[in-house]
Amino acid sequence: MSKPTPLSGFPELLPEERFVEQQVIDLLRRTFELHGFAGIETRAVEPVETLLGKGETSKEIYLLERLQAEQAGTDAGVGLHFDLTVPFARYVLEHAGKLEFPFRRYQIQKAWRGERPQEGRYREFTQADIDVVMKDELPFHADIEVARVMAEALAHLPLPPMRLRVNNRKLIEGFYRGIGAEEPQSVIRIIDKLDKLSAEQVSALLTSEAGLSEAQAAQCLSLARISTSDSSFVEQVRGLGVDNDLLETGLTELAAVIDGCADLVTDRFGIEASLSLARGLDYYTGTVFEIFMVGFEFLKSVGGGGRYDALASDGKSTYPGVGMSFGISRTLVPLMSRGLLSADRKVPSVVLVALVDEESRASSDAIATQLRANGVPCEVAASAQRFGKQIRYAERRGIPYVWFTNAEGGHEVKDIRTGDQVAADPTAWTPPERDLRPSVVLSP
Amino acid sequence: MSKPTPLSGFPELLPEERFVEQQVIDLLRRTFELHGFAGIETRAVEPVETLLGKGETSKEIYLLERLQAEQAGTDAGVGLHFDLTVPFARYVLEHAGKLEFPFRRYQIQKAWRGERPQEGRYREFTQADIDVVMKDELPFHADIEVARVMAEALAHLPLPPMRLRVNNRKLIEGFYRGIGAEEPQSVIRIIDKLDKLSAEQVSALLTSEAGLSEAQAAQCLSLARISTSDSSFVEQVRGLGVDNDLLETGLTELAAVIDGCADLVTDRFGIEASLSLARGLDYYTGTVFEIFMVGFEFLKSVGGGGRYDALASDGKSTYPGVGMSFGISRTLVPLMSRGLLSADRKVPSVVLVALVDEESRASSDAIATQLRANGVPCEVAASAQRFGKQIRYAERRGIPYVWFTNAEGGHEVKDIRTGDQVAADPTAWTPPERDLRPSVVLSP
Repeated sequence: MSKPTPLSGFPELLPEERFVEQQVIDLLRRTFELHGFAGIETRAVEPVETLLGKGETSKEIYLLERLQAEQAGTDAGVGLHFDLTVPFARYVLEHAGKLEFPFRRYQIQKAWRGERPQEGRYREFTQADIDVVMKDELPFHADIEVARVMAEALAHLPLPPMRLRVNNRKLIEGFYRGIGAEEPQSVIRIIDKLDKLSAEQVSALLTSEAGLSEAQAAQCLSLARISTSDSSFVEQVRGLGVDNDLLETGLTELAAVIDGCADLVTDRFGIEASLSLARGLDYYTGTVFEIFMVGFEFLKSVGGGGRYDALASDGKSTYPGVGMSFGISRTLVPLMSRGLLSADRKVPSVVLVALVDEESRASSDAIATQLRANGVPCEVAASAQRFGKQIRYAERRGIPYVWFTNAEGGHEVKDIRTGDQVAADPTAWTPPERDLRPSVVLSP
Repeated sequence: MSKPTPLSGFPELLPEERFVEQQVIDLLRRTFELHGFAGIETRAVEPVETLLGKGETSKEIYLLERLQAEQAGTDAGVGLHFDLTVPFARYVLEHAGKLEFPFRRYQIQKAWRGERPQEGRYREFTQADIDVVMKDELPFHADIEVARVMAEALAHLPLPPMRLRVNNRKLIEGFYRGIGAEEPQSVIRIIDKLDKLSAEQVSALLTSEAGLSEAQAAQCLSLARISTSDSSFVEQVRGLGVDNDLLETGLTELAAVIDGCADLVTDRFGIEASLSLARGLDYYTGTVFEIFMVGFEFLKSVGGGGRYDALASDGKSTYPGVGMSFGISRTLVPLMSRGLLSADRKVPSVVLVALVDEESRASSDAIATQLRANGVPCEVAASAQRFGKQIRYAERRGIPYVWFTNAEGGHEVKDIRTGDQVAADPTAWTPPERDLRPSVVLSP
């Protein structure tokens, strides 16, 4: 085989980068589990009709075809999932009899889209989803819970700070109805373009395509301009003088989410009511979320979600839900490919046990076994080079300590970053906690 | 959507089953990392020519095709990987300049094969691979290391005991050459059928297809009958009176692996030199391994691997390696579908914080937050039903403790398995270590 070339849109991580991804996954998982969310995975494939049945039908799906298929099998007509929501909805319906509701699950998995790759958008990518799903009726406090759990999870990541933007479909739909818009869904779709088009262009579309007067369009834009980090948006909306019951419900719900997360705001995590936020998908019915990475807003949202009154329905029961998704590849890969994010080690080993000669490999192995018994990841040098070379070997991998046995059989451990070398007992020695695992290094 | 039906060969786990899988993955990872193996993942797809380039070309590969592809893109002609060895070889070549050798990696990932599903063999499955790969030349001690690391990993799993069968290609090829077989590779391929055919049938094939005399075939079968749990096989082979240098090298290597793992043998893990073991693949050149699950030998091997002198080559450099693969789905799914393996909880929560009424949700949330600060996974009751119902709610999920706030604002925690209820401080209480996470339950 000649040297293979990378496949566009299928990013692959080096060991020191994969460590960061694994740590992000572990940290997300830890927060989700502390909140009682159960982890599941769904199969990678769904029948094409399932994939096409929901919202984003324009997604480029990868269909599967067997290389040597002689006859159509049960795997005919399946494709790779393009998100984790569609397979989750199917999972809930398929396993409903064996699940307990409210079903609170997290799912950290790969998905695939055959789209043109660009920075932050890949053909293969990993994302982390949380959802709370109920049978028949899901109380509103689940919206606040999902926001809080994701906020807490994001705040723990070794990444740039995250900002959660929140809006409410009832609020904007009620407002549009309140000003007399006859097709609020069209208004929502047009307002959703505010991140790509100018206010003038959006205003023109509102009059030409959604049938609004110029005054109505101006009111929609006034609403969209409201953005507050507390619930003061309520008074600003009231100031626009629109009266509608659905609008009132939306205002109450959105204020409850913003107030409900206020104690989680730090320099690592911010939240704001952002009344321009619409999210294109049709199935959201209340709260909508988008996550942005501070300083990397050009990536657009790196996650999002919301409330849907019918995640799934099998004719007999309806399953409302609320959830949020966070793009792991979408945040990590751009940071890594710009050289801003990596780990300080290429291996998990915190110690390299040096080797005097090949004949004494067994005694070096025995030292390594003693270290591992205390939870210290380590490896024995691959060959008995001179010690200078063995130290270089550790250095190239970022291993901070080298273990030596001296001529008298005594043990010494050297911190090769400082040069400090001290006597040590292999049955008792452990490194400082901060050295035990590779550290994530995020450039400022 | 009507109730979906399962897709044959794509097993999906319930939350309490996924917990077991996740724990198996965590335990494998922990052992691999303690030994300094770095975790990587490769993309799910490879160019078809890469997939077809190695050993098992008869594998049913899933090709990818874009649903709405208007023109061939860079993702044309790719398929899902069917194992983790082929993509790993490609990864080593592609990233060689950025890796440190010996490169010791583990990889726990899904793979796909379009074959007819049967118990233990699925179209989508997860496996865990470890490999040590070197540039140009890999010392033999890596064979012992891989065996030891996998042995230690397997011994920690909450599964039936595992048995590692080991042989050596040099040993059997040298033996076949020593008795005058002209096509030792044909002999190896025929001997490999001993698990499906009788000794008589194998003997007949050896004479008709490998050109052996009856006496030679009998000697091959005598060799294949040798199986010892220590290195006494060496004397038994010598007793067959065959003299060959390659055979001697093979005997020394195999004895070194068996002796090198002797201290790891427990009631959870056994090892044996098994001279009938051949493994069909052409690329093994020395040590070969197969893993069996005790009591479930009908599943055939649940893992395997070996030494290959050329895992990959780019014309300039050759990368020899030694590795082993363990089938996670292949072991877990049959145990789960027979009802022999699950966890005792459907959620990570160890405590359900009861809710007096909807108005006091904030104070129940605050208690939950205090518990989580001490690392105690918990959830707040979804609704303020009467306490009996809230206890039932915990019971159905396997949550062992329910937290109550009494009328005086005092706190009590009830172990609903025993009925014991004691006063507790939410800022300090933690459950016994054994209750902190769900437990894996393996039926005898």
